[in-house]
Amino acid sequence: MVKARKYVVKKHFEGLPKRDDFEIVEQELPPLKDGEFLFKAEWISVDPYHRAYNPRYPVPYDQFAFQVGTVEDSKDPEYPVGTRVIAHRGWSDYCIIGPGHENPNSPDNGVHKLPDLNGLSPSLCLGAVGMPGATAYFGLLELCKPKAGETLVVTGAAGAVGSLVGQIGKIKGCKVIGFAGDDEKVKWLKEIGFDKAINYKTADIAAELKEAAPEGVDMYFDNVGGEISSLIIHQMREFGRVAVCGSISAYNEAPYKMPKATILQLDLIFKQLKMEGFLITRWLERSHEAYEEIIKWINSGEIKVREHITEGFDKIYDAFVGMLNGENIGKAVVKM
Amino acid sequence: MVKARKYVVKKHFEGLPKRDDFEIVEQELPPLKDGEFLFKAEWISVDPYHRAYNPRYPVPYDQFAFQVGTVEDSKDPEYPVGTRVIAHRGWSDYCIIGPGHENPNSPDNGVHKLPDLNGLSPSLCLGAVGMPGATAYFGLLELCKPKAGETLVVTGAAGAVGSLVGQIGKIKGCKVIGFAGDDEKVKWLKEIGFDKAINYKTADIAAELKEAAPEGVDMYFDNVGGEISSLIIHQMREFGRVAVCGSISAYNEAPYKMPKATILQLDLIFKQLKMEGFLITRWLERSHEAYEEIIKWINSGEIKVREHITEGFDKIYDAFVGMLNGENIGKAVVKM
Repeated sequence: MVKARKYVVKKHFEGLPKRDDFEIVEQELPPLKDGEFLFKAEWISVDPYHRAYNPRYPVPYDQFAFQVGTVEDSKDPEYPVGTRVIAHRGWSDYCIIGPGHENPNSPDNGVHKLPDLNGLSPSLCLGAVGMPGATAYFGLLELCKPKAGETLVVTGAAGAVGSLVGQIGKIKGCKVIGFAGDDEKVKWLKEIGFDKAINYKTADIAAELKEAAPEGVDMYFDNVGGEISSLIIHQMREFGRVAVCGSISAYNEAPYKMPKATILQLDLIFKQLKMEGFLITRWLERSHEAYEEIIKWINSGEIKVREHITEGFDKIYDAFVGMLNGENIGKAVVKM
Repeated sequence: MVKARKYVVKKHFEGLPKRDDFEIVEQELPPLKDGEFLFKAEWISVDPYHRAYNPRYPVPYDQFAFQVGTVEDSKDPEYPVGTRVIAHRGWSDYCIIGPGHENPNSPDNGVHKLPDLNGLSPSLCLGAVGMPGATAYFGLLELCKPKAGETLVVTGAAGAVGSLVGQIGKIKGCKVIGFAGDDEKVKWLKEIGFDKAINYKTADIAAELKEAAPEGVDMYFDNVGGEISSLIIHQMREFGRVAVCGSISAYNEAPYKMPKATILQLDLIFKQLKMEGFLITRWLERSHEAYEEIIKWINSGEIKVREHITEGFDKIYDAFVGMLNGENIGKAVVKM
């Protein structure tokens, strides 16, 4: 018998999630049936969408999340013991995977073997070689369609997605300007090749952006929403493209009480801008394209990845709230 | 010698334009030189962009606008006496057209012979068979890409552009819902085939829209911007398209003090919406396509046009402010 633990969301979050909104539930897993395997998580992800999707599911629900781990026991010949797997079975240390074990409240019930990582850490499958990597890759390339010489602005630039967006922008020959929330992040962004990095909490955003991009902004990869996005969009050039990926500035607001910001319509009209929101599910079938190219770029040194690692199953809540508070540089992950 | 009059903008508008912001200037026109002709305006247009573009030009400037009229005298063999012409020479009764007479502060210095109107009033070249018609036609068809059975929402629905957008939507097999600012407009919109028309000033916008489109909105043609647009976009369906054509709710605001409204990013992301602003100049070369089709639709009765006619050169200011205040149903034009 295996004792398993999981985080269950007991209450809908109000503002920043509280420790008491979760309950850690322990259970004995039953013996494996044919077609099932026992999955042991080694790395667990904490992501902004764990906050954003909270209002849409009835409580209680098992907290959903990506995990990377290993098959510990198996009655599924497709997944023999020792297979490295990425699954979306939440903040749980052990679980049974197989028919009938899907989570109805999970936006993703997929289970995949890890790609050939060429020696990289499996934890990257939660980040650069996982959902955040594909998000950066397709969001930038498919919606912004960068051309060499153009200027790209990224908010949430030191996060899992933003840091990749900026580096892919550099690979494509763009001038890249990143906004982040503290000076350490700004320093790191410059180290990994951003042409300019700005601390939005202390800067005169409009003035510094104008100085960094006097000719205007061609592309904006929006991870945060809110007033900073209105300011950036106001400095865009004709036929600019905005990829709307996240809106973390609003995730802690009640869904019926969204914040207000300066309207975008005038800039959209006069500069003929295109603004498109997306979910990474749109390119799910093509994920491998992103992963293959990103692995190549990491191995060649063109992309640098950084992880913000918290250790221990008991610390997942802290890692989650820390990420929502912007404490991480790079991808926030929890090591079991 | 011909005595000509024109409206000159003396001061940048603050809020609603004031009569004193304009000066009517009289001048004697010089004799025609080779390559020139004398143009007499018969119909003059008042449009929202006359307000919106005001901050971008140094004052004083000649008020720009489309006019439809006739060649009264000519030294240009291309434009013999009697030719019907549409020009963009502003709120003026007579002017000389030819090389060197362009207005550097006009967004359009084009001069065109009228298309074959098949018996329709030449004044329509300021509306359904002019810039507003092409705006409705290309904005809807190129950016919203309507499919039969989809639901289209239009704001400013009783205006020159909005009333055409809704009717073209009906021709394309869509359910069409229009928002307008008084009950007489609402009544007219129903007469010309809108499935539902809502007075936004008196209605519970969100509730009435939900009732009219319980399945959600596929396309939104935005003429107004502001909070109503946030409410409508919040009720859009996955992969919805927003064409941003105008933002009249903000045109009377100072350019450095744009209004705020509920942010759009969350809806853009979760519903993967595309939102695109445009200027009709994008499809200038293709205008004739719109005109030909719209003339056909008017002749077949599939599109009904209505004009709000003010008479007299001295009344252009009143017609302009009336249009900005939403007093017109259909296209606001001034008859000389």
